[in-house]
Amino acid sequence: MPDIDLKDATSFDWWTDVSIRFSDQDPNLHVNNTAFAVYAEAGRVDYLNAMRRHLGIEPRSALVSVQISYVNQLYYPGDVRVGTRLLRLGNTSYTLGQGLFAGDKVVATSEAVLVFFDYEKNASRQVPADLRQAFESGARLVPG
Amino acid sequence: MPDIDLKDATSFDWWTDVSIRFSDQDPNLHVNNTAFAVYAEAGRVDYLNAMRRHLGIEPRSALVSVQISYVNQLYYPGDVRVGTRLLRLGNTSYTLGQGLFAGDKVVATSEAVLVFFDYEKNASRQVPADLRQAFESGARLVPG
Amino acid sequence: MPDIDLKDATSFDWWTDVSIRFSDQDPNLHVNNTAFAVYAEAGRVDYLNAMRRHLGIEPRSALVSVQISYVNQLYYPGDVRVGTRLLRLGNTSYTLGQGLFAGDKVVATSEAVLVFFDYEKNASRQVPADLRQAFESGARLVPG
Amino acid sequence: MPDIDLKDATSFDWWTDVSIRFSDQDPNLHVNNTAFAVYAEAGRVDYLNAMRRHLGIEPRSALVSVQISYVNQLYYPGDVRVGTRLLRLGNTSYTLGQGLFAGDKVVATSEAVLVFFDYEKNASRQVPADLRQAFESGARLVPG
Repeated sequence: MPDIDLKDATSFDWWTDVSIRFSDQDPNLHVNNTAFAVYAEAGRVDYLNAMRRHLGIEPRSALVSVQISYVNQLYYPGDVRVGTRLLRLGNTSYTLGQGLFAGDKVVATSEAVLVFFDYEKNASRQVPADLRQAFESGARLVPG
Repeated sequence: MPDIDLKDATSFDWWTDVSIRFSDQDPNLHVNNTAFAVYAEAGRVDYLNAMRRHLGIEPRSALVSVQISYVNQLYYPGDVRVGTRLLRLGNTSYTLGQGLFAGDKVVATSEAVLVFFDYEKNASRQVPADLRQAFESGARLVPG
Repeated sequence: MPDIDLKDATSFDWWTDVSIRFSDQDPNLHVNNTAFAVYAEAGRVDYLNAMRRHLGIEPRSALVSVQISYVNQLYYPGDVRVGTRLLRLGNTSYTLGQGLFAGDKVVATSEAVLVFFDYEKNASRQVPADLRQAFESGARLVPG
Repeated sequence: MPDIDLKDATSFDWWTDVSIRFSDQDPNLHVNNTAFAVYAEAGRVDYLNAMRRHLGIEPRSALVSVQISYVNQLYYPGDVRVGTRLLRLGNTSYTLGQGLFAGDKVVATSEAVLVFFDYEKNASRQVPADLRQAFESGARLVPG
């Protein structure tokens, strides 16, 4: 797969809109950095739920790590548009890539590593074959 | 003014939509009660900003008290529609009434008492004459 | 029971310390009003857990309403001391009273109405006899 | 500098205690991943404020990126101990390394990249000479 530019809105087909709240702001008069983590999670969960609905894949996962790069300030009021896509696929783990946008302007990018997890067996699970096939069949996976 | 039923969506003309976030939930698998306070603030600030834009009134206020009544459970995902209206008007203070709705179903009502405040003089201000006139001229005030 | 002054720290025997976080602040350079709701909840849950441990009472409840009065500004950094006490006792419902303090200075008071709830039967429960006896035997109930 | 193990509490001399709040939890009955970002920020700001107080350095910075690795589940109630240290020092940027602990058990590590920033000139600043000297004089910098 060619390099994906998470700052480019055309990299994404799945979008989650999150309304910015007054209390997301901090004394620096912008949206606090930790609110970005909340927006990113809102996008991730929405994407994984779409995976369940549209691909019939049970996405129950454990979060391994989250990385957020802050590109531009974000201001109240307004909405954040969170683009989410599958970026990499391992044996049991996968990486979601995200771009956070205020209108057309990117404000942050994020990568999250997760492992498919079986909470009853308390163990990681193999990446579902359907997901691998869908992922490898094209440049991007679009749930829905 | 006749009694206003804050559980009735027709009591409101000004609406603020807030998207529910995954992290608004708590271990009881519903939206945590403190998130309702955040939604109510989002609606209040939006209403006061509309007052500034549409009535030319500077709404800078200090918050005296907030009361929230929980009527129904609220669940992720979805949006909360927050209706806000002016409920009472004193000499320096006023009360905003709110209804929080999930679709057509009321999930909470809220009343907030605020005082118009002059932060440079560190003192309360008289309710603006324009606002009193607008309020007393009809059953409801609609900014915008 | 004589009137209880929730602004008076001597009204409370049960205390919960909550550390103020940078992100609790808002653009007004003070702690946002919605963080007070979070502090109050932290105190309520801590008090109810103490009731379970020390009085053998199962406090599982549903929240009916929360009222917060803002008395003084609160600033980062520091701790909030939340005092919690049982204020009123009905047949199935009860009221917790709280005072929030920064050092010796009261910053807010709060009252929350809850009903003892049986989530399996989806119905309110009678106030436990042990709790009524303990409450009526003295001016205040001290779990622990 | 030898490799620093952020999972090892002995790597840190500066500690910030943060109390876990009921509302930090999510439907998975553990502390939500985004609360870790809030804890990490609480530690970073506390560390930078100590730098100001004890080293006379103005630490006003802009946040470039935050990375969090989730090592163990974290549960309510209790406190999180956040250890923070200077990890790397560039010309205008620096990296803070953090370990988050529940008692003796590491629950997460975090790295944050920041740039010293002059908000009046809207430009990055050189790392203060005092800070470089202090940093290069020993394996670790201890504000205070």
